Amino acid sequence: MTSQPVPLPTTTRASVLLAAGELAVEERALTPPAADEVLVRVASVGVCGSDVHYFRDGRIGDFVVEAPLVLGHEAAGTIVAVGGAVDPARVGTRVSIEPQRANLTSAETLRGRYNLDPDMEFYATPPIDGAFAEFVTIQAHFAHEVPDSVSDDAAALMEPLSVGVASARKAGLTVGHRVLVTGAGPIGLILVQVARAYGASEVIVTDIEPSRLETALRLGASQALDPREADVTALGVDVFLEASGAVPAIRSGLRALRPGGVAVLIGMGPDEVALPLPVIQNRELVVTGVFRYANTWPTAIGLVRSGRVDLDAIVTGHYDLDHVREALESTSSPATLKSMVVPG
Amino acid sequence: MTSQPVPLPTTTRASVLLAAGELAVEERALTPPAADEVLVRVASVGVCGSDVHYFRDGRIGDFVVEAPLVLGHEAAGTIVAVGGAVDPARVGTRVSIEPQRANLTSAETLRGRYNLDPDMEFYATPPIDGAFAEFVTIQAHFAHEVPDSVSDDAAALMEPLSVGVASARKAGLTVGHRVLVTGAGPIGLILVQVARAYGASEVIVTDIEPSRLETALRLGASQALDPREADVTALGVDVFLEASGAVPAIRSGLRALRPGGVAVLIGMGPDEVALPLPVIQNRELVVTGVFRYANTWPTAIGLVRSGRVDLDAIVTGHYDLDHVREALESTSSPATLKSMVVPG
Amino acid sequence: MTSQPVPLPTTTRASVLLAAGELAVEERALTPPAADEVLVRVASVGVCGSDVHYFRDGRIGDFVVEAPLVLGHEAAGTIVAVGGAVDPARVGTRVSIEPQRANLTSAETLRGRYNLDPDMEFYATPPIDGAFAEFVTIQAHFAHEVPDSVSDDAAALMEPLSVGVASARKAGLTVGHRVLVTGAGPIGLILVQVARAYGASEVIVTDIEPSRLETALRLGASQALDPREADVTALGVDVFLEASGAVPAIRSGLRALRPGGVAVLIGMGPDEVALPLPVIQNRELVVTGVFRYANTWPTAIGLVRSGRVDLDAIVTGHYDLDHVREALESTSSPATLKSMVVPG
Amino acid sequence: MTSQPVPLPTTTRASVLLAAGELAVEERALTPPAADEVLVRVASVGVCGSDVHYFRDGRIGDFVVEAPLVLGHEAAGTIVAVGGAVDPARVGTRVSIEPQRANLTSAETLRGRYNLDPDMEFYATPPIDGAFAEFVTIQAHFAHEVPDSVSDDAAALMEPLSVGVASARKAGLTVGHRVLVTGAGPIGLILVQVARAYGASEVIVTDIEPSRLETALRLGASQALDPREADVTALGVDVFLEASGAVPAIRSGLRALRPGGVAVLIGMGPDEVALPLPVIQNRELVVTGVFRYANTWPTAIGLVRSGRVDLDAIVTGHYDLDHVREALESTSSPATLKSMVVPG
Repeated sequence: MTSQPVPLPTTTRASVLLAAGELAVEERALTPPAADEVLVRVASVGVCGSDVHYFRDGRIGDFVVEAPLVLGHEAAGTIVAVGGAVDPARVGTRVSIEPQRANLTSAETLRGRYNLDPDMEFYATPPIDGAFAEFVTIQAHFAHEVPDSVSDDAAALMEPLSVGVASARKAGLTVGHRVLVTGAGPIGLILVQVARAYGASEVIVTDIEPSRLETALRLGASQALDPREADVTALGVDVFLEASGAVPAIRSGLRALRPGGVAVLIGMGPDEVALPLPVIQNRELVVTGVFRYANTWPTAIGLVRSGRVDLDAIVTGHYDLDHVREALESTSSPATLKSMVVPG
Repeated sequence: MTSQPVPLPTTTRASVLLAAGELAVEERALTPPAADEVLVRVASVGVCGSDVHYFRDGRIGDFVVEAPLVLGHEAAGTIVAVGGAVDPARVGTRVSIEPQRANLTSAETLRGRYNLDPDMEFYATPPIDGAFAEFVTIQAHFAHEVPDSVSDDAAALMEPLSVGVASARKAGLTVGHRVLVTGAGPIGLILVQVARAYGASEVIVTDIEPSRLETALRLGASQALDPREADVTALGVDVFLEASGAVPAIRSGLRALRPGGVAVLIGMGPDEVALPLPVIQNRELVVTGVFRYANTWPTAIGLVRSGRVDLDAIVTGHYDLDHVREALESTSSPATLKSMVVPG
Repeated sequence: MTSQPVPLPTTTRASVLLAAGELAVEERALTPPAADEVLVRVASVGVCGSDVHYFRDGRIGDFVVEAPLVLGHEAAGTIVAVGGAVDPARVGTRVSIEPQRANLTSAETLRGRYNLDPDMEFYATPPIDGAFAEFVTIQAHFAHEVPDSVSDDAAALMEPLSVGVASARKAGLTVGHRVLVTGAGPIGLILVQVARAYGASEVIVTDIEPSRLETALRLGASQALDPREADVTALGVDVFLEASGAVPAIRSGLRALRPGGVAVLIGMGPDEVALPLPVIQNRELVVTGVFRYANTWPTAIGLVRSGRVDLDAIVTGHYDLDHVREALESTSSPATLKSMVVPG
Repeated sequence: MTSQPVPLPTTTRASVLLAAGELAVEERALTPPAADEVLVRVASVGVCGSDVHYFRDGRIGDFVVEAPLVLGHEAAGTIVAVGGAVDPARVGTRVSIEPQRANLTSAETLRGRYNLDPDMEFYATPPIDGAFAEFVTIQAHFAHEVPDSVSDDAAALMEPLSVGVASARKAGLTVGHRVLVTGAGPIGLILVQVARAYGASEVIVTDIEPSRLETALRLGASQALDPREADVTALGVDVFLEASGAVPAIRSGLRALRPGGVAVLIGMGPDEVALPLPVIQNRELVVTGVFRYANTWPTAIGLVRSGRVDLDAIVTGHYDLDHVREALESTSSPATLKSMVVPG
């Protein structure tokens, strides 16, 4: 590491959502990193369903885009500058970004579940800007170093993998479990691999798209079913990981659980779902959800480094900053799994 | 204990449900206790909501009364005879009956949750007879000795108290928790006391019946609310124990939970309830139920013996075998909490 | 709250340990509270065994007093000033001090166990000054408000109560447990009460000092034994809380556990203890310890506010800043339970 | 399956331990299977360290061989007859034997930890005969069917694998854990594989025998160390699995744990071990052991069927009933990992 100071960038190109459906690339002023932050040159950013929601509808539930917003929260890159309280030796390291900022002294954070901190600020959630940009800042402890063997895309996709890790932990997934995953989109395909890594003896996946079912089988599923043709309710699985957001999948998945089984509802669905109360009661099912993640990055990076999870396998396209609209719209095609934005 | 053999009864009087709404007292043949069983002279039996359901409708969900059935599963009495493999010294002891018989070698039983054994036989659940009778048999290990300080009624009501203990365990209820209990009927009033015994710092109860709310306050609730007048959704409780079966209670109770909170759905409600999916997900709530209980009797007996739970306080009437109809019908009055059948 | 600014103190009187056995009261410069801190006028401080160790030996294990050190870490008082990032409305509130400062972004802290953060700074542990002083500073989130019903002494003793709460949590202590507490000094007497509050059905205490055993009985113990006369190894308890540091107590206490029982070793003992390996293995005992506490204050305050734990009952003497030596030396008398230093 | 009745054997050849060091092959009367039992023609039996202890010393701790005893408890074979309460269709199935018989109605068994039942009867533990015999009986639910892909030896070795599964569960071993295994004998080599199957990111093994370290590396260890040359205490592992019984390994292994780490002591060692009390306390370590296993066989069979654990890889020799002495003595050679007795 040479000691020659490199001039910091003072602006960054960014793709900005101006209103529902309206995007523009702008050159924006860049605030230097605060004392506890690092500045990251972004190498790759995954497109998430929530980005698409904001783009199409200008809102997700109570979160409304009321001012121009940079989307993108699955990001990786290289540290190019550090704040005053951060070890300068970190400049030059490749990192995966954990895109959140908790109140470090809240009750929830001090209890180890900072994702539930009510004051959480999160990339690409109004009014916090995200990572469809050349440069972003993040607190130093949430810029997680990745080894050279991990690609930029995989480094970015530690974020959805973290959702998978959080889900497996919630489910208490362990060796010998039989697991149902509903939905074989990017999250479902990650969950298949995560379930295997946690020791699942059997992973049954459902989706209505044959190509996704094939990918699921290739990535470790033991069975891939079209829910319009196969009834899952007799499976008697230990764990049900719901990644489709589809009401029939949620309802039949609960019935697929054995007594004492656990359902983790991950996919975003409607505001209300009619659930079978006596089934939950008589089988003592546990029904829960995940809201992002806490303390998952080291585990996620380990899973990729060891080859237990292959994130590059779900990348189906790359787009530069001038084509973020195309990246967002690409997700409507069943052939698209994960589109990546490459800002550089 | 004298060694003179007492002749065993060969018949028992019993109140028999012949069809929905149709009861008769019959003198029935009594099978001697099997090797691992004891014969109990019944002293007191609580009337449960499920007894009322069978009496009124002849069924509960898939369980249908297709042959004459003796109701009653909250029972206590005195051992009058033992099977060949049971210590004869147990004759004369007062016992609370755990009214179930599991397959002792099933996978669920060997894992410690025999209540989830699919082959479970349970008192007063077709086709197994219950305890509205002078004499019943039960396996020796499920005839739990009670101290003299515990009344016959309280001994019988270890059964609903066991539901409360099972619920507190499911909820992980511990010191400092703030707890919402919806419904101040017999189970709700037990839950209030159980929550306190497990260390709850605050117990908020809701019911639409003022007299029940008063009883709840007397038994340890810190607040008693009419849900038609008070909104619970801002409470931010750690634990929600649902004992009303009412859909609005279930739905608003979930919203009353803080992030990471646990809901245990105990009350029998409709087959389907519309639940707020994003609330479960964004707060990472845990929603579960209890199906009876396992390994709860020693704990329940200890709670009553130490005075932490007062079961006699919820008894509001006694009926003999010839008045089981009146006992069952008494439950429709809001002034009735727990009616007891005294077969002797 | 008036808006008139009160001049901040610029110095504080403090009792300073200059070397082993050597104390002096000094007027020391007082640094104004940092942005995230509050300045507390100290009302009461408990004398802990570790204070006595530093006073007598100038060290505890690897922690050596190499520069003048203010002792005292069980402290309460009133906020008299706040840093720039703290709500000024907090001035005037009575608080119990959680006397630690963790690295808020360390892996251990973010996992919710900040007590295990390797960079922890702790009051009265070299080189961090403690609370035998008129004024101290602490981070705002670790100045826990106490209600008026809690005395200054009790507010200070939330610290050892927190050790008790941490121990109960480690033990998984819950309703129906039978508990052995060895040692009826201040910690042991707190543990007796905590065990009851967590639902213990029986609490057996051992100590060689009759007066302490009497106090234990008065505070909720069901049995109080002199270990020189009574053998505890046949008790078959669920939980063993060791608060004496005495090797025979540790060794016999382990044998007192039932299969699957949990031992929490709290008392400071020698560097090595010979433990019975086959007993740990054949009974699948869990042996663990507590190192301070995390996230215990709200629970501790609730226990005192509700009257479940009486901390004033263990206070046996008060000393001003000029008599800290006497306070420290008082602990060698068996009649002393907890000596308090009152700096004001 | 033909319906022709096969005449049951009335005697069985067995290798009998008459006294320490004294073995004889005898033709012994065979009791027909009880109603809940099956009769198994033994195909393979592993030699365990405890067999060797009984053979050499005539005792293990309080368990003393006072009458002729058949050794061997790691057994598999084929069901040749069933008791009256067992499905006759089970005749002909290949099974792995779980060699224990619990009191099915004891408190421990009903809580799901039948291994801690005080009345447990266990193969080859005085006075219960083991499996170095042509035929043995076992309760039907503990004769676990194995698929054809699992060899007889592997079916027999589900028993030590069950110790490994029980250990991983006790440790809470999961994805991302760094694990230290001390001792690379049969149990250690199983633990290495089990740790990997449960998701360990790193498995460090120690042994003083180079050939065993090589085998450990081949079976999945990431590092293999000679403890006389390498210091493990700076490793900072999450989980420590002790399989050597050697005091220095136990003591240094505890110091190798990170704060909050778990030690499972599996190897049989001396009656007393001096443990570092402040290390356990200051790091809040959890120290525990395993006593056999409960509910492990389905998990163990799944691990072998899926190829995640290779049990055949640790088999180093086969002996018939006439050479049980040689089998027992073979274990003193470091080249021996697991010797199998083949009674047929």
